Amino acid sequence: MNAEIIAVGTEILTGQIVNTNAQFISEKMAEIGVDVYYQTAIGDNEKRLLDVIEMASRRSDLIILTGGLGPTEDDLTKQTLARFLGKTLVFDQQAKDKLDQFFASRPKSSRTSNNERQAQIIEGSIPIQNITGLAVGGLLVDGEKTYVVLPGPPSELKPMVTKHLVPLLSKGNEILYSKVLRFFGIGESQLVTVLSEYIKNQTDPTIAPYAKTGEVTLRLSTKSNSEQEANEKLDALEKELLSVRSLDKTPLSEYLYGYGEDNSLAKVVFENILNRKLTISAAESLTAGMFQAKIADFSGSSQLFKGGYVTYSIEEKARMLGIPLVDLQKHGVVSHFTAQQMALKSRQLMQSDIGVGLTGVAGPGELEGHPAGTVYIGISTTEKTESIQVSIGGRSRSDIRYIAMMHAFNLVRKTLL
Amino acid sequence: MNAEIIAVGTEILTGQIVNTNAQFISEKMAEIGVDVYYQTAIGDNEKRLLDVIEMASRRSDLIILTGGLGPTEDDLTKQTLARFLGKTLVFDQQAKDKLDQFFASRPKSSRTSNNERQAQIIEGSIPIQNITGLAVGGLLVDGEKTYVVLPGPPSELKPMVTKHLVPLLSKGNEILYSKVLRFFGIGESQLVTVLSEYIKNQTDPTIAPYAKTGEVTLRLSTKSNSEQEANEKLDALEKELLSVRSLDKTPLSEYLYGYGEDNSLAKVVFENILNRKLTISAAESLTAGMFQAKIADFSGSSQLFKGGYVTYSIEEKARMLGIPLVDLQKHGVVSHFTAQQMALKSRQLMQSDIGVGLTGVAGPGELEGHPAGTVYIGISTTEKTESIQVSIGGRSRSDIRYIAMMHAFNLVRKTLL
Repeated sequence: MNAEIIAVGTEILTGQIVNTNAQFISEKMAEIGVDVYYQTAIGDNEKRLLDVIEMASRRSDLIILTGGLGPTEDDLTKQTLARFLGKTLVFDQQAKDKLDQFFASRPKSSRTSNNERQAQIIEGSIPIQNITGLAVGGLLVDGEKTYVVLPGPPSELKPMVTKHLVPLLSKGNEILYSKVLRFFGIGESQLVTVLSEYIKNQTDPTIAPYAKTGEVTLRLSTKSNSEQEANEKLDALEKELLSVRSLDKTPLSEYLYGYGEDNSLAKVVFENILNRKLTISAAESLTAGMFQAKIADFSGSSQLFKGGYVTYSIEEKARMLGIPLVDLQKHGVVSHFTAQQMALKSRQLMQSDIGVGLTGVAGPGELEGHPAGTVYIGISTTEKTESIQVSIGGRSRSDIRYIAMMHAFNLVRKTLL
Repeated sequence: MNAEIIAVGTEILTGQIVNTNAQFISEKMAEIGVDVYYQTAIGDNEKRLLDVIEMASRRSDLIILTGGLGPTEDDLTKQTLARFLGKTLVFDQQAKDKLDQFFASRPKSSRTSNNERQAQIIEGSIPIQNITGLAVGGLLVDGEKTYVVLPGPPSELKPMVTKHLVPLLSKGNEILYSKVLRFFGIGESQLVTVLSEYIKNQTDPTIAPYAKTGEVTLRLSTKSNSEQEANEKLDALEKELLSVRSLDKTPLSEYLYGYGEDNSLAKVVFENILNRKLTISAAESLTAGMFQAKIADFSGSSQLFKGGYVTYSIEEKARMLGIPLVDLQKHGVVSHFTAQQMALKSRQLMQSDIGVGLTGVAGPGELEGHPAGTVYIGISTTEKTESIQVSIGGRSRSDIRYIAMMHAFNLVRKTLL
């Protein structure tokens, strides 16, 4: 079944609100194996709404309309759809009762015919009750096509989708199962290049790459009637993909740091440190506190983090951390030496198990002859102190600092392996 | 001129991401008097993309496509539009140079033909340079219709829209002039309440309030052929509005911290410190480095910032800053005393002109009997050391920390007045 979503509301077209309903419904449809091919947003305009409904009915099996069910003059979604289908509006008793109850304690004059209309559905519809509002929704099967009408406020729409629409639509359907693989340290274009044969020939499961600043995800998806069968397919494909090698011959498994939709690199590392009952500290230069602030994003951070240093100038690297100034001057602040010393000293001074040092050139200008994006990251444990150098070229100052922070989390992750 | 926006990307249709680009572009178009009638999102599918472009070219004057300019196989927006228009793709020299520079420091094998494509535009287009990424955009006038192609990542799209597309489109039009007033310390609902008469009766200039985490802006807009005429109208209205008083009788001018679209509170404070050749340091607890990292967001930060402390535990507040532990225990870490001591000690130890101390309860749990959102912020200068207490109730951990940081910047701003 392929579907499309039509959001009705001028406030979307003027940019006053973001069309989050389309995202929410799309996500829920993907979960039950319904493919959404189009999302459209249009204003409260009958002519254009009719045109869009007409086109949708030609190209999609399931048409979901949201918004325009309220009590104001310009709410005309139900009326327009009824007109298109040549049907009338009828009262739904349960919604009518709710309306009566609502107006029982309010002045009679506030109950207008516009208000009444909120309790109406198109004849022949299955009503979709609105728990958090007055406007009832509906699902109507008309020949080969299914039309769904839902209110616009997300607080009303969301429970109606999850509690009523999803069960109505998923009867007898195959469900879409997904597994999201999360990578750091490899760019999207390289990942897609080395996996190009798999991506070109994908049928089931499908493979969808997606990139955000500094990281890439691969979503593997398959439709199935059973979770077990789906997992077997997804796991087998994952195993194959992870054995593929990057351009420098490293297996992709080395770049994989975690799974799932919202599982950031920082979160994975945070949980790893927490589970192993370790503590961490840092001395930061170009990131100036970002790394430490990110650790404290997670509740429970006081169990593993006591504090650390922001050493932005060379003098403060010497003074706060006790690194001899002559040594800093000899090696330069943008160096393996400085990154390692920052990691070591922060670990020793804070008496933590892990120390991290971040130094480099945020840009836009050069520093000590190094171009913007040259970053050294040190890590120190009771066993060893080492460092890596990364080049984050062609990026903005804020991207360079963010990606440097991500590399620091990745270095902690690898050290803990 | 009426416009429509077509966002291309399967990740929108599967609900993985929200189509915020459509909202952003719609808002910018509204500001320059372009009416957006349709927003459409479709997947990375050539056939459906062609259909949608074909339909858009029939019903709209301006068609803005976003997404699908990247280096992967499924990025096909430019090619599909070129095919629809019967045109070819050509290299844009400036974008090509940027690509060359980007790959100069990278292994040759990572430079693929897919990557090259990012520097191409449709023949006859005005290139729209991408400052924060590699994929160049373009604007093409074809007969009566104008086509615009922009990349999908918001960090690339936004500057391209504001710096290039908006000026390109507003030529010759009666231009919409705007003045954005930025407030901190007053909520949107209160601001709208005290200005309700003005907002109700607005005609020219118009008044549009907008709220983001912790701050509110008012956009005053008027259409005019002359900048001077527009400015006179906007300035007169501003003067009137700023004399209105908040519910506690403070004139709104007291909450105004700056002007303009991207002029954050942090930026205003940063520039103020820089212009006065002062230096700043901080000791942070609940924000754990956010305040300092924010200062270092701005290039030139090394002129005013040398470093500071992240003192997350009570022990580290004592040890790193030299505040007697018994005093911290007596007053509690969530207190005026601790905030002031953190500010004072960080200023003294770092030998800076201004010291800031941030302590409080990020939540979700309580601390020392104080609920989440209880925050104390200290400020110390050579003249005095003082502190404020703010309650940021009913917010998430990340909002509380962010708003606490904003209050710290505002406290610095007020102290410097």
